[in-house]
Amino acid sequence: MELWFTEKHTPAAGITLKCKKTLFSSRSEIQQIDIVETEDFGRMLLLDGLVMTTERDESFYHEMLVHPAMNVGSMPQGQALVIGGGDGGAVRELARYPSLEGIVLCEIDPMVVEVSQRYLPGISCALSGNEKLEIIYKDGVEYVGQTSQRFDRIFVDSSDPIGAAEVLFTAGFYSRCYSALSENGIMVVQSESPVYHLSIMKQIKKALYQAGFSRVLFYTGPVPTYPGGYWSWALALKEDMKETMAQQNLPPEQKQKLNFFTLEMIPGCFVLPAFVKRALVSRQT
Amino acid sequence: MELWFTEKHTPAAGITLKCKKTLFSSRSEIQQIDIVETEDFGRMLLLDGLVMTTERDESFYHEMLVHPAMNVGSMPQGQALVIGGGDGGAVRELARYPSLEGIVLCEIDPMVVEVSQRYLPGISCALSGNEKLEIIYKDGVEYVGQTSQRFDRIFVDSSDPIGAAEVLFTAGFYSRCYSALSENGIMVVQSESPVYHLSIMKQIKKALYQAGFSRVLFYTGPVPTYPGGYWSWALALKEDMKETMAQQNLPPEQKQKLNFFTLEMIPGCFVLPAFVKRALVSRQT
Repeated sequence: MELWFTEKHTPAAGITLKCKKTLFSSRSEIQQIDIVETEDFGRMLLLDGLVMTTERDESFYHEMLVHPAMNVGSMPQGQALVIGGGDGGAVRELARYPSLEGIVLCEIDPMVVEVSQRYLPGISCALSGNEKLEIIYKDGVEYVGQTSQRFDRIFVDSSDPIGAAEVLFTAGFYSRCYSALSENGIMVVQSESPVYHLSIMKQIKKALYQAGFSRVLFYTGPVPTYPGGYWSWALALKEDMKETMAQQNLPPEQKQKLNFFTLEMIPGCFVLPAFVKRALVSRQT
Repeated sequence: MELWFTEKHTPAAGITLKCKKTLFSSRSEIQQIDIVETEDFGRMLLLDGLVMTTERDESFYHEMLVHPAMNVGSMPQGQALVIGGGDGGAVRELARYPSLEGIVLCEIDPMVVEVSQRYLPGISCALSGNEKLEIIYKDGVEYVGQTSQRFDRIFVDSSDPIGAAEVLFTAGFYSRCYSALSENGIMVVQSESPVYHLSIMKQIKKALYQAGFSRVLFYTGPVPTYPGGYWSWALALKEDMKETMAQQNLPPEQKQKLNFFTLEMIPGCFVLPAFVKRALVSRQT
């Protein structure tokens, strides 16, 4: 018997992966959670049937989510916040910065953390034994609205804007994040696929400016198991910086451990393809 | 009835596209040729059952194949040669440079050109009514070995290194191309997917240096319907240039017609992900 998992990225296009077996399958209070062992991409985490991450290409996504924002602007010395990201990949990348005072992970679903710790040790490794890390199991919108902490960097590592995560793409939520950021703070939002979701990218841009951010810069990179194999992130600056020059904030010994990101990718990663640039040309549309 | 086309990029991973109908299906002397109308990607050209190009994402590939090499180094004023590329996409991009004296397309299979002219007018548009273009139906290896012409740029727009196209990835072929290039000539070879074909990229690098090229620079970009959604090209320089600075060789009115490439992508596109850089670190391996 051959088991194939097919994710339709649209009703008429998708990827298909041969699977060895299902290692975990259960419904939490929030969502359906599965861990499947694939032939080519290692173990794969699915939420509500959609690919969240695979062992083989998680570094493409997690390193690009975290490192560009950590290496523009001044050395982040205070707190960093990850909203979502219960698999621990974003926290693992943040743990590479000894200059950070603390890392807060705000994940709505405890079962995502439990399952990742059990089945995805390479991704979740920084979630245990990390004195600087605080894990809070709460709705992200609620948390940023209530906390009195101020963060140097906020990373929104959410699932797609359908169901539970929809609110994480609104001006109301971004506005709370804006308030929770320190003066020169930077926020990064995973902003979907330029191939299929240009209209979502436009909405994100509009909502970030509505929330008060001075400048929004999109950047892109390949993520083979995500829709179109091509992903984007929005980097929002509280105070505008004229230049997005790469700072050497990542310690040299950590650079060698990265699989995807290199400091030399800054500022080139911010250069958008013509069709994306045209779609995002206006602040308001 | 639902028709789905599935291409396995490995025995255990692939993409799947919903199709409306098959518009053309025939065997030429060289290969099986199909044109299929997909729901999401427009018309799609398949050779021996593998996706060569689709209307929706062909610009991602063709623009990245042609424009980086046309905008580094001095203004190309002589001849350009495309080997393979019977769909016409590379020729269409080259036709944007009025400075070029002539374009030669060397395609082994006349049926690819015929079928592209009939079913893919947006891609093949520059194949007819183009006074500067000469189409030669011949094996590329044979042609570059015999021609007395010298080219400023050579583009190897081949299919995968299996069967007929295998020879287009060898030092013997590259060496003939080297001889057919003018003094400051540049060659570009499509060099497969960094996700699945790192070993092919290594072989290409080794073979290009063996053929006498002074410097080989790989660059990458997204191509949603290609393996891993992520593709690479090798740019080989006959004479080394210290800097790959973007030249403004592409006329401004043509810039606006591009869907993917922008001049600002140079030199950022040459910055490789860490795992690719490490794999290609040595000249010889």
